Amino acid sequence: MDETALRLGVNELIAAYVDCIDDDRLEEWPDFFVENCRYLITNRESHAAGLRHGVIYCASRGMLLDRVMAMRRANIFEAHRYRHIVGPARIDRVEGGVALTRCNFLAVRIMHDGDSQLFATGRYLDRIGVGATPYRFIERTIVLDSQKIDTLLVIPL
Amino acid sequence: MDETALRLGVNELIAAYVDCIDDDRLEEWPDFFVENCRYLITNRESHAAGLRHGVIYCASRGMLLDRVMAMRRANIFEAHRYRHIVGPARIDRVEGGVALTRCNFLAVRIMHDGDSQLFATGRYLDRIGVGATPYRFIERTIVLDSQKIDTLLVIPL
Amino acid sequence: MDETALRLGVNELIAAYVDCIDDDRLEEWPDFFVENCRYLITNRESHAAGLRHGVIYCASRGMLLDRVMAMRRANIFEAHRYRHIVGPARIDRVEGGVALTRCNFLAVRIMHDGDSQLFATGRYLDRIGVGATPYRFIERTIVLDSQKIDTLLVIPL
Repeated sequence: MDETALRLGVNELIAAYVDCIDDDRLEEWPDFFVENCRYLITNRESHAAGLRHGVIYCASRGMLLDRVMAMRRANIFEAHRYRHIVGPARIDRVEGGVALTRCNFLAVRIMHDGDSQLFATGRYLDRIGVGATPYRFIERTIVLDSQKIDTLLVIPL
Repeated sequence: MDETALRLGVNELIAAYVDCIDDDRLEEWPDFFVENCRYLITNRESHAAGLRHGVIYCASRGMLLDRVMAMRRANIFEAHRYRHIVGPARIDRVEGGVALTRCNFLAVRIMHDGDSQLFATGRYLDRIGVGATPYRFIERTIVLDSQKIDTLLVIPL
Repeated sequence: MDETALRLGVNELIAAYVDCIDDDRLEEWPDFFVENCRYLITNRESHAAGLRHGVIYCASRGMLLDRVMAMRRANIFEAHRYRHIVGPARIDRVEGGVALTRCNFLAVRIMHDGDSQLFATGRYLDRIGVGATPYRFIERTIVLDSQKIDTLLVIPL
């Protein structure tokens, strides 16, 4: 596989993913995953301890969509948006059409009144299907640096 | 056109642009634009509403230079600098030597006494002339996530 | 030299470096440098004035290791971690197997209780040995935007 093309493709997938969330096009968010996916938001301590549960856990694309639908219906939280800044993705290895990658991120939260604050930092640990285009997430584990923001999470990261 | 070379060139232009501002080499800033350029700083609501005006609007390279000169003469604001962190640029399409691109950014403002704070986040929406080198901005629309920072803007973003 | 490969290699080195620090694998941190290296943390004013001293200065890989060992033994500071977000690296020039590069960074500091704050911003100015793999830092000058954080520095940036 051409390594440059692989890197560009992985970085593009990750950039398109955060654009989708930051644009509030959440109904399209599940399309970045394969059907039998795994999406987990956890924190560093839990991840280091090998715990497989987290703040948010979804085990299929349908669960991701359910989550978006519930969020749209409930709508009890104060309106806000994110702005993600991601660093360069690193590719740990590629095996059988699956790339294991990691990428640092920072998310700023912008409230409806315009107040902005550093909301979350951490790392995306991904298993990405790269055997065919478009690339899709098979597994996305989001390891937050702080355990403090757990209760504030409404929009996916 | 070689896609890898295009991506590297676009990312290099955007990185060189923010370095110029962060280094306070503002007299060189207009050189990143073609003569008949358009530079607009707006916010998400105005942009979504299709409004073509904004906090700062310049319709030529001369207007950009005028802005820098006025800023240098006036000098009534408290001295400060920015540090931009940009994410990977995404290329939406290329047509007739013009690339339409987008890129997330975050700007930290560092005051003269050393105080630093998250100043602005948003997205660069660009039309870039890529038919010849060096690449130049034909149009740069800066969509701020928050409407709160408008009155604090002195240095271009 | 293939420019794309060079850029990918430089970006990978810088990304691997910050991952090492953010993961608290500090014993591995000196391995990113050549034996006769130079590591300097300074601030913008000092750097602009051409001063060669700084907040932290190490003139060999052994001094980097000494610093880590001292930090591990002392352990008198409150436990904290960083999360680095780096922008795209820019290559100023390559001469005789050495690349001169620059790269913006932002570091968030996460305290043991989960409090996160914008800790430092600035620029990495690097001389990187690119004549052989793995690439290694010959000289890394870290120019902080603010002089305020000097006394808070424990972990390397």
